[in-house]
Amino acid sequence: MNSITALIGDKTMFDHEPRAKAHELSVDQWFNTDSPITLNALLGRPVLIHTFQMLCPGCVAHTLPQMKRVYELFGKGDLAVLGLHTVFEHHDAMTPTALKAFIHEYKLTFPIGIDRPSQTGPTPQTMTAYGLRGTPSTLLIDRSGHLVLNAFGHIDDLALGAMIQSVLSGAEDAPALSGPSGTAQGGEVCDENRCVATPHG
Amino acid sequence: MNSITALIGDKTMFDHEPRAKAHELSVDQWFNTDSPITLNALLGRPVLIHTFQMLCPGCVAHTLPQMKRVYELFGKGDLAVLGLHTVFEHHDAMTPTALKAFIHEYKLTFPIGIDRPSQTGPTPQTMTAYGLRGTPSTLLIDRSGHLVLNAFGHIDDLALGAMIQSVLSGAEDAPALSGPSGTAQGGEVCDENRCVATPHG
Amino acid sequence: MNSITALIGDKTMFDHEPRAKAHELSVDQWFNTDSPITLNALLGRPVLIHTFQMLCPGCVAHTLPQMKRVYELFGKGDLAVLGLHTVFEHHDAMTPTALKAFIHEYKLTFPIGIDRPSQTGPTPQTMTAYGLRGTPSTLLIDRSGHLVLNAFGHIDDLALGAMIQSVLSGAEDAPALSGPSGTAQGGEVCDENRCVATPHG
Amino acid sequence: MNSITALIGDKTMFDHEPRAKAHELSVDQWFNTDSPITLNALLGRPVLIHTFQMLCPGCVAHTLPQMKRVYELFGKGDLAVLGLHTVFEHHDAMTPTALKAFIHEYKLTFPIGIDRPSQTGPTPQTMTAYGLRGTPSTLLIDRSGHLVLNAFGHIDDLALGAMIQSVLSGAEDAPALSGPSGTAQGGEVCDENRCVATPHG
Repeated sequence: MNSITALIGDKTMFDHEPRAKAHELSVDQWFNTDSPITLNALLGRPVLIHTFQMLCPGCVAHTLPQMKRVYELFGKGDLAVLGLHTVFEHHDAMTPTALKAFIHEYKLTFPIGIDRPSQTGPTPQTMTAYGLRGTPSTLLIDRSGHLVLNAFGHIDDLALGAMIQSVLSGAEDAPALSGPSGTAQGGEVCDENRCVATPHG
Repeated sequence: MNSITALIGDKTMFDHEPRAKAHELSVDQWFNTDSPITLNALLGRPVLIHTFQMLCPGCVAHTLPQMKRVYELFGKGDLAVLGLHTVFEHHDAMTPTALKAFIHEYKLTFPIGIDRPSQTGPTPQTMTAYGLRGTPSTLLIDRSGHLVLNAFGHIDDLALGAMIQSVLSGAEDAPALSGPSGTAQGGEVCDENRCVATPHG
Repeated sequence: MNSITALIGDKTMFDHEPRAKAHELSVDQWFNTDSPITLNALLGRPVLIHTFQMLCPGCVAHTLPQMKRVYELFGKGDLAVLGLHTVFEHHDAMTPTALKAFIHEYKLTFPIGIDRPSQTGPTPQTMTAYGLRGTPSTLLIDRSGHLVLNAFGHIDDLALGAMIQSVLSGAEDAPALSGPSGTAQGGEVCDENRCVATPHG
Repeated sequence: MNSITALIGDKTMFDHEPRAKAHELSVDQWFNTDSPITLNALLGRPVLIHTFQMLCPGCVAHTLPQMKRVYELFGKGDLAVLGLHTVFEHHDAMTPTALKAFIHEYKLTFPIGIDRPSQTGPTPQTMTAYGLRGTPSTLLIDRSGHLVLNAFGHIDDLALGAMIQSVLSGAEDAPALSGPSGTAQGGEVCDENRCVATPHG
């Protein structure tokens, strides 16, 4: 077991598959950036992506404040810090207009993209590509563009700080992790920590 | 100085005017109730009203969780507990559809009404009638329908518990308070505790 | 069921016996007061007593900060706010000298007495007289010197605020409560919220 | 500026002197370990030392809970996690007997040593050797026995997690830090975050 896996401990949050190349983001609209952002253009830098929904109580209470701390502590250095709005329910409430107001009121200053809606179901395209199970999820990508962390639910600051340092220093013991094989589809159940996307019938 | 005034202490939050009859609510749409609610129909019971906006960070972090605690502790008894969505900015983001999703995700179960929009400005009608300065605001009405508290910003649980007990026991030393004379109009500034509605130029 | 009982809700914390006259305190040494304090001398005022141990983690984390808030909000008025150090274990660690340093470092400014040690067992005399089950415990005494609340464990601010207001306004529906019949003796078990005094074998 | 220095940011907390060999600990009595611990015996492993006083409110509220989290997350691996009780005031209150009860009640399970008292002043010997300014302080020592962090006051989890990972992975960019040149002596002033040892006149 490698160091990052040991830090999380909760085996249900990870699949220990061979290290995968991180999928490119599917985003049409960005906030807090002058030009669109691609993972390809960020090659050479580690990237932390926090996926959220503006009406996910756990994201608002725990993970977005954490992202502000991460951005303040690491964002002026080598680490790229991104938010991704992965709406898989209440699409008519969590519109781009509503997200814009949310970003303003919560004073979020790191770049945030809107995950591109699917043509065929409620789950947006990047969320499907990464097999995300709900919100919040945290993705960590190393300098070579490989996914080293795909975690569903909130991660404690102490563990997240260690993981970030691990990719910043390019440690060779970083784990080979990819997302869970199941793709999120359909109904949503939120508790105070996270919102689960449950598969359709 | 009476007891409730002493509990709050912050003189800037209150005007100490003669006890006023509470204005009837202007609400077209209610959630969490089978039939519309009027203050007139609640005469004989004390009423606590929490006014909020779904994108007001201080409301979400502090005051709505407090309202859930109040509703759980006092709501099965004599006290009527109501929420009022007083949207004075970002009207296209905080729509009735968005509020419905918000109420669902945050598991709010007390009755919540939407303050009726004005024909002539951004501030809705009940908010104007009470002279509210922003969100969150707390209104407390005694059994005879008179307003005894009109406070802007978050109130600590210890003081709010005492105020509620004061109207439940019908104490005669309850203060005669009405809202500030200035009516909220125009632009909004939020900090982590509250959103201020600033007058138009 | 009366109003204060309803606020607490946890039936295991109370005995619903006839209203009892509050026992006089057994205290030889006081801090933060120029002269000794007796309940008899306080007749006519309501009294809130918080019993604690300086090495009880739940007291330090939750209840002593609450007492500071209570003292600040109500202590300049009619309510007498007292602390009582009821040491029932680790007597050689929680000495008067150690308590004095603790009061200094934690900046406690309300009067605090040391419960008089027993000649025959580990539980001090006031703690035995009230039948306290451990720390923290909260005692509330009305203007006529009768005990209306004897609660073990932490009480939420919202409920405590209401109870205090109830004795301040002299409401006639205040409950007749006395402590549990069993007297604390012997070993101690603490969790993060409270320390239980378990009977000797 | 190296990575750990950047994480802390507060220049007042550090002196940026040449990397120093960490002083051996001066400890006569240990808790939670069968045999005495020396830094010399730990060479090859990174070491985190948290210095505290049992009556330092900031240590109790913030830093000791953090140490429990650190010990749970990293303590079963390569990192040695130690506590050091550096009493510089209230010596008659914070005795070894009192500390033993404190460790029991707060359920601290990592090894904790008592800094050896000085023959000539209030500040104990290890505290003087490291030039610590008060409690809490955090010392981080790399595998080769060099001091890489000497911080006074609480450090956020995110930054501390990164620093720990840095010494675990043996990153070469770890900073050369030693303590402040002034040695703590004399009177104490605590706020809610830390206790400062002020020099004697």
